[in-house]
Amino acid sequence: MKDEFAFISNISPEKTHQSSLLKGIGDDAAVYRGSSQFDEVVCVDTMVEGIHFRKDTLTPLQIGKKGLAVNVSDLAAMGAIPLFYLVSVAVSPSWNEQELREIYAGMEDLAKEYQMDLIGGDTVSTGDALVLTVTVIGRVEQGCARYRHTAQVGDTVFVTGTVGGSAAGLELLLQQGLNGDFTGEEQSLLLAHQEPMPHVVAGRLLANYSARISLNDISDGLASEANELAEASGVQLMIESDKIPFHPAIAQIPHQKQLEYALFGGEDFALIGTVPSEQSDSLAKMFSEKGLFFKEIGSVLEGPVGVFLKDEHQQRKLEKQGYNHFQKRG
Amino acid sequence: MKDEFAFISNISPEKTHQSSLLKGIGDDAAVYRGSSQFDEVVCVDTMVEGIHFRKDTLTPLQIGKKGLAVNVSDLAAMGAIPLFYLVSVAVSPSWNEQELREIYAGMEDLAKEYQMDLIGGDTVSTGDALVLTVTVIGRVEQGCARYRHTAQVGDTVFVTGTVGGSAAGLELLLQQGLNGDFTGEEQSLLLAHQEPMPHVVAGRLLANYSARISLNDISDGLASEANELAEASGVQLMIESDKIPFHPAIAQIPHQKQLEYALFGGEDFALIGTVPSEQSDSLAKMFSEKGLFFKEIGSVLEGPVGVFLKDEHQQRKLEKQGYNHFQKRG
Repeated sequence: MKDEFAFISNISPEKTHQSSLLKGIGDDAAVYRGSSQFDEVVCVDTMVEGIHFRKDTLTPLQIGKKGLAVNVSDLAAMGAIPLFYLVSVAVSPSWNEQELREIYAGMEDLAKEYQMDLIGGDTVSTGDALVLTVTVIGRVEQGCARYRHTAQVGDTVFVTGTVGGSAAGLELLLQQGLNGDFTGEEQSLLLAHQEPMPHVVAGRLLANYSARISLNDISDGLASEANELAEASGVQLMIESDKIPFHPAIAQIPHQKQLEYALFGGEDFALIGTVPSEQSDSLAKMFSEKGLFFKEIGSVLEGPVGVFLKDEHQQRKLEKQGYNHFQKRG
Repeated sequence: MKDEFAFISNISPEKTHQSSLLKGIGDDAAVYRGSSQFDEVVCVDTMVEGIHFRKDTLTPLQIGKKGLAVNVSDLAAMGAIPLFYLVSVAVSPSWNEQELREIYAGMEDLAKEYQMDLIGGDTVSTGDALVLTVTVIGRVEQGCARYRHTAQVGDTVFVTGTVGGSAAGLELLLQQGLNGDFTGEEQSLLLAHQEPMPHVVAGRLLANYSARISLNDISDGLASEANELAEASGVQLMIESDKIPFHPAIAQIPHQKQLEYALFGGEDFALIGTVPSEQSDSLAKMFSEKGLFFKEIGSVLEGPVGVFLKDEHQQRKLEKQGYNHFQKRG
């Protein structure tokens, strides 16, 4: 299928990430063939040193990988096929050429997984923090893009992966830095933060599944993303506390801490969505047959718009609290 | 024609540049319909405070306008129709919300000219300089995109606008700041730097003109951009010094200074291209009929790859010297 989407540009990807590296050149346009069978999907996301990462939480390779992954995760949440990416880096003097090459190499690592081509970009200087902006372009069969606004009362709420791992990993990194002495379990949490994988295959399955499905990725924590779904659809989501699939490496920590990581952490990159409850089982079966994770965590109810968390004793409203990378979480 | 390119996104442009302003939210994807009749053209460009602009050279409105214009100029150089744009801003504490709104308003001003839609973006914080990254998406009839690599010996070299005005304007701004006491002529130079207009209409004419045409925009000065054409095509460009159309407001300054502005300044946003010499007259006529500027400035010759500047006494090689906004030019 990829071959249909021929890249025709007048610049070579090499040019962008080698010759123009550190030189401030690269204001080129890239050209690729259009297709009436598909809708185009595009998104852009920026990671800033000191805000989204630090040198003691991600290696340059991981910065690149994650910079692209954040965007590919947005494509996955629409059900799109990732195709191309463009990279703009504003580089400060505290970064050397080798580190910058590694950032690009990290993006290339992830791009290979999806046969994505680097088709353009820009490299400029800045005084202070490194700013990495990635634009990704993908496609989805016409009319098959998945949105947040299509959830309805009676739907089942599901996620396509475990949650809480990334925030737990970040906490370890902030305590001990990149070169801490970590157990195997802890290392799996570190990787959940440093090298999260977007759920592209799950997104593609959901785009092509013949049911009304609403979808979002969990990049800012379950509470925030569930609220986006609820607000966009004008419904209430009830999440059952004991159904949330926590990352296995945080299985033994206190439940309150698990919840904090999963609800108000972020960057787990799993997808959260809703499907009419009568079709949830067959969707779960399809995921299982493909060896993919699928877990029901709640349902869509009538009532005031918002998200509620229910356990055996009580239920409480989950606010749309975002992900503060390097600030204390409440 | 625009109506064919329906924008289908799940986010509203308002959301991106109002609610999410200064909040660090906005990692959404946008969706628009594909078309097999067209090639897609995409480019990204970044402007950094202190490198590409300063608060004493551009107003916030002009920063926005120019941030989009730089990119639209890249589309123009491919012959593309501008359609969509996405904006990522990393904002430092020295910028307030009102200024940020004006940056977006400046982009919107220019976008209106071309009926472009803002379809996504990201707003994040940074510690130091403001970093504005704009991604633009356009389309050109299948196979009609113009490139740099198609110039051939025997071609005529042309430009679609006057040059040198932007660099002269920048010099005035660096001497006197935004609130200097400027003559009418000087103000026209300031505007050439602050609010350059991309040559979209010229690019569209050139894309649809039935001749082999190579094309580039003059964003980094005539010397640099002519060299890009020469290198990409593997030819030699001979530019005649007395044919270069200088901005009228620098008509009276010494020739050496005119040349310095035009050759090694930048951001004039005119297009430079080549066309087989036997078709140059009819192309010039077509431009004239449309009320558009067109000027032959030289020819493509056999010989070593590069760009040469010829006057009545001598010829000299023009190196690919870039545009250093706030550094002394040699």
